[in-house]
Order: sequence, then structure tokens, then C-alpha cells
Amino acid sequence: MRNNELVSEDVPIPEPESGEVLVRTAACGICGSDLHVMAHAKDLANALQRSDAPFRLNPARDIIMGHEFCGEIVDYGPKTARKFKPGTRVSSMPFLVRGDGLRFIGYSDETPGAYGEYIRLTESLLLEVPNGVSPTDAALTEPMAVGVHAVEKARLDKKDVPPVIGCRLIGLAVIAALNLKGIHPIVAADFSKRRRQLAEMIDADVVVDPAINSPHQTWKETAVWHGSDAPALPPWLPGPHLRPCVIFECVGVPGILDQIVALAPANARIVVVGICMGRDSIEPVIAINKELNIQFVTCYTADEFGATLRNIADGKLPVDGLITGKTSPEFLSEAFEALRSPEVHAKIMVEFGN
Amino acid sequence: MRNNELVSEDVPIPEPESGEVLVRTAACGICGSDLHVMAHAKDLANALQRSDAPFRLNPARDIIMGHEFCGEIVDYGPKTARKFKPGTRVSSMPFLVRGDGLRFIGYSDETPGAYGEYIRLTESLLLEVPNGVSPTDAALTEPMAVGVHAVEKARLDKKDVPPVIGCRLIGLAVIAALNLKGIHPIVAADFSKRRRQLAEMIDADVVVDPAINSPHQTWKETAVWHGSDAPALPPWLPGPHLRPCVIFECVGVPGILDQIVALAPANARIVVVGICMGRDSIEPVIAINKELNIQFVTCYTADEFGATLRNIADGKLPVDGLITGKTSPEFLSEAFEALRSPEVHAKIMVEFGN
Repeated sequence: MRNNELVSEDVPIPEPESGEVLVRTAACGICGSDLHVMAHAKDLANALQRSDAPFRLNPARDIIMGHEFCGEIVDYGPKTARKFKPGTRVSSMPFLVRGDGLRFIGYSDETPGAYGEYIRLTESLLLEVPNGVSPTDAALTEPMAVGVHAVEKARLDKKDVPPVIGCRLIGLAVIAALNLKGIHPIVAADFSKRRRQLAEMIDADVVVDPAINSPHQTWKETAVWHGSDAPALPPWLPGPHLRPCVIFECVGVPGILDQIVALAPANARIVVVGICMGRDSIEPVIAINKELNIQFVTCYTADEFGATLRNIADGKLPVDGLITGKTSPEFLSEAFEALRSPEVHAKIMVEFGN
Repeated sequence: MRNNELVSEDVPIPEPESGEVLVRTAACGICGSDLHVMAHAKDLANALQRSDAPFRLNPARDIIMGHEFCGEIVDYGPKTARKFKPGTRVSSMPFLVRGDGLRFIGYSDETPGAYGEYIRLTESLLLEVPNGVSPTDAALTEPMAVGVHAVEKARLDKKDVPPVIGCRLIGLAVIAALNLKGIHPIVAADFSKRRRQLAEMIDADVVVDPAINSPHQTWKETAVWHGSDAPALPPWLPGPHLRPCVIFECVGVPGILDQIVALAPANARIVVVGICMGRDSIEPVIAINKELNIQFVTCYTADEFGATLRNIADGKLPVDGLITGKTSPEFLSEAFEALRSPEVHAKIMVEFGN
């Protein structure tokens, strides 16, 4: 990424520093955030600067993006334990741990991301990819872990009925994680027919086209308490008697949070997984009157990331149907464009013919 | 309130309906929200309309405000149990429970609030004011219960270090509730010297003038883990090692939430107690990067309201110093004006010479 555009160029192979390994990229997923960041790099850089975030983004310099990766170890830097042999297929959270802090692999101008042929990884974060897991499936660990983490942060119990607003890859990852946790019924909403089909494929229980049915109304019908499970309500609270609502916001464009706040039932929790760049506005008095809770989430813990890779290997997290296209690095720009169409792709994988 | 102004006029004594009692007002506190609503009645009405809130506000009609009250029973409507004798001093949450839903006493054009001489109350919600508690202290139950409820919704534990941003009455109520719960150290911030003195009076541990010291920096210094309490951090998280941060937003003007989001440490929880009218904006990507949680709160439960009255009666919630002025209903407009000055008043009570 140079001046908000993709360019292709030969650059030196990066040198692994202390505690780091050199990895040849085998596959890298194209993340919706990469398209977002390319369009809004300055906004994002300013936001990170304004806050105490441990990351910095410098859009004035070249950035090799790509943070959903799988690759093979080819070399070791100083002070490495070399637990994994050369050729071992590995995955990792996209962070480089350096003495002075973290680098986010894929959004740092200091270390290349996995749209390049070689990346550096911190050895202590390496995960060996289990036998039989393809590089492209392993590269899905990162976005699937975002869904797993969002569901963990939501502190759900079996009473909760989660609407998932937006079924891009990250919404699908949330649906998969909800299924893994046994939370039902899952209500999924997206304007795109293709995305609704994918949501059905990974077992969303109720799938809504917001152009035809209100997700809010559908949630209400789905969330009615049945039988003796229903707790007693104080007499002054108006009915109907509904199960708790935990809304996953997986769209990430300005205005969505405002709509969700306006339509959410009282006491709803909103988990914001979609990444909205720039400023966004809400009406606080609405959120106050309904005592809404908004949990913003990002990334995952090391445990969640590792568990996600194992669950992909064990077939407990469905990934096959989510990869809707594969390409080679020469066609990255075209693949970025293709990903914009809501009716075709969920996840496009870049494969490196090593 | 008529056309966003206060007017004084004789109106008929309201008739208690089924399950309601007629109460002669003895004291009513002036709430900052009344000043807010008078300035922004249309915004608030639109916001309530847009959302599923169980209340409606009709600014085109006269509204008798006043929702922090204490009074004496003078008559009973049909279908009342008459458990309390005429003359009994009572308090209540400011809701009227009707068959078709709730009315918010003080913001409804259908039933008068307690700046009027008579109000209707739902009998089943009545609380008898304990002997020895003055009407003005009893009328503080409502705002103090807002603080108690905010602290309950914050799900605090002893590790948390709460900054309280803004020391108007509602910030002071939060500080009092934190003290009652034994949460320390409490960091209180306000630009007004008078309000900082009040915060000290009710035992905030650290009091900051944001014109001189950054509340954020002060919180950081106060929240450093000491000794063996400190939990282990993952090696890739940058220091310093700080206790969890739970920020109480008690200002309620546009822009404050944005500032808090930008300065909050990672994983902070923000409890929004201040009522910001109109739209307000944040930068979601900052909140996402830090995984902030925003809990909007309002009012209280019946249990919290009752416990607050008992804690005032028992001297466990300090209220004496919080009433900084008393007036009679003829001077309501002047009292509204006086409450705007940050250097004079916390709570002004309207006393009715019955």
C-alpha cells in the first residue's frame, strides 16, 4: 500500500531479529479491513495517535499488508530456540513482539505483512499447523478467531438470543462461534442473497433479508419466552416477555450503530465487531433510556487463537465453504475489487506457489 | 413547562385513579435534567419516539416537572388498600403504573410532577419515610438512587479504580455510592472548585482540577498495582501494570464521551450516567482497539430505591451537605437559574409550606 493504492514491487527479504523466525508465505486471506484501511489510512492513523493504542500506522510510508496467514519456516534469527524444524507449516497471531512493544503484522511499515513472499514472526507465538490442514484453511484461523473472541467477550448464556447484523466473513465467523458455543436461535441479517446463503450453510437458525423483514421484528418473534423458563417480570414493565438480546454488529459502516441503538430492546447488549472508520454518531439519550451496553471488541487472546486453529483442524469450525475464491499475488488488486461485490465472495485467499 | 419556559398557574387538583393515592408535595429537588429537558424537549421527544422507550414526552403540551419528591398522603383513589394513613410521609419512584404502561412523573403531560402542590402516586410503589428524616432529605432519595444504580450496573470489584468525571449532584451521588460499596481509591474530577470541595466532603480519595492535572494521568498514578496483588500480564502487553479502570461519565454534554473514549486505558469500562441530549459522536475504531465497554444507565430498581431511602435514614449515604439551597415554589425560575452556576449549588430543594 503506497498512497492508498496497491503497488507490486521487489523488496529485500526481511531479516529476522532476536527471537524471530523467517517464514515463506503459503497463503494469506484478504481481509475487509485491508480495503477499509486503504480507503481511510489517515483517519485510522489519527485515531491511533489520539488514543493510547499500542500500535501506530504511518500511511506516509509503504506498508505490506496481509495479516491472515500460513507459511513455512525457512530461517531463524538470533536467540531462537528452533523448536520447529525448517519447513514446518506455522500460523501465528499477526503480532511481532519487540522489546519496545508490539508491531501489528500487516499494518506496520516496520515489518512486512503476508501479501509479501516472506514475513518475520515471533518464535514464541508460533503455532504448528496440524497435519491435514491446508494452508488456506489455516490462514482462516485469524478471522475465525475474531468471531470466537467476540462471542467470548459477549459473556453469553443459554437464555440469550443473538441477532448477527451483517454476514460478511466476520459475521459468518461470529455465527460459527455461536454454534460452537451452542447458543440458539441465531438470527442472521444481510441484504445480500449470497451472504444469507452462506449464513444458512453454517447453520444460522433464522436468516433475514432486511429489505423484506425487519431484523428487529424477527428477533422479537424469535425471542419470546416459552413455557416455564420465563422469569417473573416486575409488574410495571410492559410485555411481551422476551429473552435477553445480544446484538453482534458485523457491518462496520457509519450509521449502523445508531440504527441498532434506536431499535435495540431495553437492556440489550451490543457487541461491535465491525470496524467503522472515521467518526460515528449515536443519540445517547436513547441508549440511556434503554440501559444499553456496548462492548467494542478486536482480535483475540493467544488461547482463543490456538483453540480456533485446533477447532478448524477438528472440523468443529466450518471453513470450507467460506473460501469463495483463490488467486495468486499478481492478481491482488483484482481480488480486492472482487471482494467488494456482496453477491460473490466471502473470503478470497492469496496462494503462493512455493 | 410551556414552550420551553417555566410558567406558574393554578390548575385543578389531580384525581387519583384506580390504585393511586393523592399526595400533597412537601419537598421537591431541582434536577439538572429538568434544565436539560427544558432546553432540549423536542430532541428528547424525538429520541423517545425513535426508540422503543416505554415513555413519551409531548413538548407541545404543558408539563408539570419535578420527580425528586416527598409528600404526605391526603386522599385515596378507587381500589386502594390504604395501608398508610392520611398524613403519612411517603416517597416513591417517579413512575405511575397504569394498565396501559408507565408514566414518568415529572415528564408526562398526563400527570403532574412535584413542582405542583399535589401529585398522584401508585399505591403499590409507596415507601414510608422513616421517622426523623426531613422531607428534603427524603427527596434526595431519587438522585442518590441514580448513583447507587450506576454503581450496581458497573459490576465493580475491589480491584477496580473508578474515576468519576464531573461532580454535579449525580457525580457526587456516584461517589457516595462507591464509598458505601467500599470501592477505593475514588478519583473525582471537576473544573469547579465548589464541586471539588463537595467531592472531598463526601470522601472522594483523590480530587482533580482538569484545568491543572489530567484526570487520565492522575488515574494512572493512582491505579498502579502494588505488591503481590498484581496479576501476571502476558509478556507482549506493554506496561505499566495498572488496576482495571471503570470510568463514571457524570457530565452529560456532547463531546465528553469522545474525550473519555480517546483517553481511556485499554479494557476500560465506561458507565454513562450523565444525560447528553441530541446527537453525540465518537471514533469507533479507538473504542475497538481498546476493547472499551460502554454501559448506559438510568434510574434504579425498586430495591435500590428502597435501600437508598433506608441508607439516607441510617446516615450511611451522606446527604446533609449536598442540599446547598432551599426555596419556595414561587422562586422556581430563579432557582433554575441559580443551579446553572457551578460555583454555588449542588442541589436546590423546593419546600412547600404545608
